[in-house]
Amino acid sequence: MARRIKVETNKLEDFVTDVLQKHGMTATDALVTAEVMVSADKRGIESHGVARLKRYVDGIKSGIIRLDAKIETIVETPVTLLVDGGGHMGQVVAFRTMKRCIEKARKNFVCLATVRNSNHYGIAGYYTQMALDEGMIGISLTNSAPLVVPTFARDAVIGTNPISFGVPAGMEMDFLLDMATSTVPRGKLEVAARKGEDIPETWATDEAGHPTTDAKRVLDNLAVRAGGGLLPVGGVGMLHGGHKGYGLGVLVDILSGVLSDGAVGLDVYGKKGQPAEVAHFLGVINPDGFAGEDAIRKKMDYYAKMLKRSALANGEERVFVAGEKEYENAEANDQYLTIQDKVFEILNGIGNEFNIILEEVE
Amino acid sequence: MARRIKVETNKLEDFVTDVLQKHGMTATDALVTAEVMVSADKRGIESHGVARLKRYVDGIKSGIIRLDAKIETIVETPVTLLVDGGGHMGQVVAFRTMKRCIEKARKNFVCLATVRNSNHYGIAGYYTQMALDEGMIGISLTNSAPLVVPTFARDAVIGTNPISFGVPAGMEMDFLLDMATSTVPRGKLEVAARKGEDIPETWATDEAGHPTTDAKRVLDNLAVRAGGGLLPVGGVGMLHGGHKGYGLGVLVDILSGVLSDGAVGLDVYGKKGQPAEVAHFLGVINPDGFAGEDAIRKKMDYYAKMLKRSALANGEERVFVAGEKEYENAEANDQYLTIQDKVFEILNGIGNEFNIILEEVE
Repeated sequence: MARRIKVETNKLEDFVTDVLQKHGMTATDALVTAEVMVSADKRGIESHGVARLKRYVDGIKSGIIRLDAKIETIVETPVTLLVDGGGHMGQVVAFRTMKRCIEKARKNFVCLATVRNSNHYGIAGYYTQMALDEGMIGISLTNSAPLVVPTFARDAVIGTNPISFGVPAGMEMDFLLDMATSTVPRGKLEVAARKGEDIPETWATDEAGHPTTDAKRVLDNLAVRAGGGLLPVGGVGMLHGGHKGYGLGVLVDILSGVLSDGAVGLDVYGKKGQPAEVAHFLGVINPDGFAGEDAIRKKMDYYAKMLKRSALANGEERVFVAGEKEYENAEANDQYLTIQDKVFEILNGIGNEFNIILEEVE
Repeated sequence: MARRIKVETNKLEDFVTDVLQKHGMTATDALVTAEVMVSADKRGIESHGVARLKRYVDGIKSGIIRLDAKIETIVETPVTLLVDGGGHMGQVVAFRTMKRCIEKARKNFVCLATVRNSNHYGIAGYYTQMALDEGMIGISLTNSAPLVVPTFARDAVIGTNPISFGVPAGMEMDFLLDMATSTVPRGKLEVAARKGEDIPETWATDEAGHPTTDAKRVLDNLAVRAGGGLLPVGGVGMLHGGHKGYGLGVLVDILSGVLSDGAVGLDVYGKKGQPAEVAHFLGVINPDGFAGEDAIRKKMDYYAKMLKRSALANGEERVFVAGEKEYENAEANDQYLTIQDKVFEILNGIGNEFNIILEEVE
């Protein structure tokens, strides 16, 4: 039976850093990438955490991720950047671009950056958090592998294309939205398929383009692109607002892949064995260009309290503000966290080659 | 029985302009406001069209809309603006701010503007269209009267807070997303209540905070704030992604009302007989800061074609790109459009005082 393995959070990060270095990454880049990954586990977003290490390592080995790539600045103005990642590690490309964006916004009030030819960059919210740590507003969007079906269409054309925005608060927790524009990510279907449970009709469509409760069927269809896929938030058709989720997914693709003249839709992960050509959109807004940091933090506190003090629907226990759950998770997982035994084994399998060991804490 | 009245589109705009001037608006401001309103009818968004004239005129008379207000610039940098509308007409405040933003973005590549103390500004998409007309990317968000219930809450706290983004294409129609962050706007419930039809459970909640199919009950509850209201896109709870629509609605409130240190949530339309304190967020992005106008238009064409040529779900006829339907409507309504007989009568009732007549076309 599956069980969860407790590990030291710091040691997990060290382990991932070591493994990435052994695979040719510089110490600095490895540390950044490990931190992005472990921060996902800490927040409770396991799908984007260390469970992905194997895929990244395989990507490095097969040349999909190119650690020797030069990350090039194609266009630069005081408030914009267009960066070509050259197929480098997504976390490295996005981290460096966000760093520069933060500096620019500090000086010039705003910075918007598009990035093309990158790879999977982990959780979108990591980069918005970088802006929050500097007392500024962060934006992070990315396109991704085509798994989502446009409204009225049969086949998956766009990614789960997440939207992340962060706005600093004062005494309250910062606002940190980080959401896929599909109803759910693929991982939720994998869990349902494993357990043999039905999924709601708002999650996915079958090969005819109709809602289905059969998660395994959707995953099998997606694997061979037989039709169907994940639904945009709002579900099938227009009656429940599915065209809105679809429109937002396309918007993310445009800001990432069109503004950078990079890849969009089916072209993301479009060439087998080649770089995935993932595109990102990153942004930083300096509060000094508007009402100022103090006023904004204070108003955020006021608004967060207004939301959290709402009367509850019968049977409910709490109204959340975006990011609260993840911050609470991160705090709880600061010293130790648990990972699936299967992931623990895979990690040690990867480390084994270089005598790097991840230890279970009793 | 209700019927539709055909009018000349230009004459409808002249009529509205005249009426607004008679109520004390300058010729320039009246023309802008009329154009925003009629553009909504042309696009098929009647809820935001000339049907609102009575409400605007009443607002001017009662002092909620203050035509003598000074629209003040509180903060200005090369790429940002914070504007205080002083309670002036929303369309006038937003139009002038967007104009300035376009100039700034032309020169400095990006402009982001927040506006506080404004009023209802009509369709969000009008202002993104202004940027599109200049070959640039437009952003337009606004908060609005609290009608939407946060996830797990019982009462309406946030507005239908729309998101509009426009991105220029080449041969294809421009991308123009303009969507409320609720599943549907209040108008859809009014239609259902009038017809005595059930609404889907994804649209609204009752006074206990549970989904209901009874539109009249929701509207009655909202009128006296007895609990319940519209649902964020994704519906009730988290199972279908309702927390995403909620998060996006809050984001719009933050970018509009928090960044400007203006009103948010329950404070919008919070004081009876006083200015509504609506807040907006407007933005313009110059393609020259990224891949350039030609490359972006070309890639947009490529992407729009990819989406529109998707295989169709069984039983469906067409895959749309955001904005297509509205552009097609606007073209069809360029010379003539039809309005509800009830609206036609109300308009002539307003005009009657000043001998301004809107004529029906046979």
